[in-house]
Amino acid sequence: MDIAEFLRRMADAAAKETLPRFRTAGLVSNKFDSGFDPVTEADREAERVIRELIKAEFPADGILGEEHGTENGGSDRVWVIDPIDGTRAFISGIPMWGTLVGLTVAGRAVSGMMSQPFTGELYFATADGAFYEGPGGPRRLSTRRIADLSQATVFTTTPALFTGDLRVRYDRLERAARLTRYGTDCYGFAMVAAGYADIAVDAGLQSYDIVALIPIIEKAGGVVTTWEGGPAENGGDIIAAASPELHAAALKAIDG
Amino acid sequence: MDIAEFLRRMADAAAKETLPRFRTAGLVSNKFDSGFDPVTEADREAERVIRELIKAEFPADGILGEEHGTENGGSDRVWVIDPIDGTRAFISGIPMWGTLVGLTVAGRAVSGMMSQPFTGELYFATADGAFYEGPGGPRRLSTRRIADLSQATVFTTTPALFTGDLRVRYDRLERAARLTRYGTDCYGFAMVAAGYADIAVDAGLQSYDIVALIPIIEKAGGVVTTWEGGPAENGGDIIAAASPELHAAALKAIDG
Repeated sequence: MDIAEFLRRMADAAAKETLPRFRTAGLVSNKFDSGFDPVTEADREAERVIRELIKAEFPADGILGEEHGTENGGSDRVWVIDPIDGTRAFISGIPMWGTLVGLTVAGRAVSGMMSQPFTGELYFATADGAFYEGPGGPRRLSTRRIADLSQATVFTTTPALFTGDLRVRYDRLERAARLTRYGTDCYGFAMVAAGYADIAVDAGLQSYDIVALIPIIEKAGGVVTTWEGGPAENGGDIIAAASPELHAAALKAIDG
Repeated sequence: MDIAEFLRRMADAAAKETLPRFRTAGLVSNKFDSGFDPVTEADREAERVIRELIKAEFPADGILGEEHGTENGGSDRVWVIDPIDGTRAFISGIPMWGTLVGLTVAGRAVSGMMSQPFTGELYFATADGAFYEGPGGPRRLSTRRIADLSQATVFTTTPALFTGDLRVRYDRLERAARLTRYGTDCYGFAMVAAGYADIAVDAGLQSYDIVALIPIIEKAGGVVTTWEGGPAENGGDIIAAASPELHAAALKAIDG
């Protein structure tokens, strides 16, 4: 089946589980006793319906998800799912969360989608490129091809992500940029792909937090790597930039 | 004319100026040579059409706006306008901005609206109460009536707002709360009114940043004051809380 159509179908199925539970009370449970890591019924149910669609359509493929672990882990093709990226936004009413599904082939992210059902936005990538569907009408995604870090808008979820030496390195990046905005999660990466922001940076990401976003940004003209310039597919400290030149400038600022 | 209907009419007129300019390039100009204070054509045009509606309907009333200054300043009734609160969100593609219009009578905010046209949300207050219209259908707004700060979600635009002693005081509040989220501007105050978050806090606000939001939060059950507990209508360092008890606990945390 057409991958774009399959991505849309997963987005729609997930939205039926997430949206009716957005902005309703009593959702939060604690995943761990220590700290505040909310996981919701919406999270679990959205991943469940996405897994059902994948198993029905691509039964030999592997699946890795935040909530329900790994299946067929040895497959060359693995679907990587974060049913609600930005759970904290979700539980506090803010539509900056998204449903992420990406596909890796031989460990490389090749297609993926980020769906925000409250705003009705879908950002996705296939072999044909990166695309937007939602308010304002469908269009091809293209990053802003700036090269100068002093002109760049930087997004991160919260500076509290960065501790110790990471904070020193992040602060250098923030100081070198034009404008910083917090609270963005996956939505910030989508904005880089769409050309409204130039850099999205986060630390301590899991594979399922980033795999879906890699092809969306790459096929829009951007670059996604770890802070050391390595592949982003396994997560870690991740930086996405609107152009190869800006990415090089950002890594240089981080390295000091 | 019915105030709710007039608030809707202003929201619609402003949306025609803001929404077509959202997520388009080349919008930013610098209001001041120093720093980064973007002001857009959308900002100016939205305030212009709002002023036209007010002058046509209430010609004796005063008007105070971010972009075009004060008219009829001596009137007992003054409409207070921020055509785009959250300009930095606006220019970076993030739908966390809003159009704010509030009405003060004898210096007291009595009605107001916050409109987010990309998501299609309207939060407003009249003498009849506080209301939401948008995705999910219309409803009355009601804050979450929690009293315990350790259960509270706190929103602020960015901790960079707080310098010196303000930062020390803000940090005490953040440490005492359950969850903090950045990047919210006016949207965070609307979330407090809607019962998805419990505290919204910002520093150095202008009158036009807060007047529209005061009645929305108050009529939903919350409290809005300066950090010293005084009236919020003139701006300054502002805190909104979901209940009188939570507001008292938050001020106590801020005072240390």
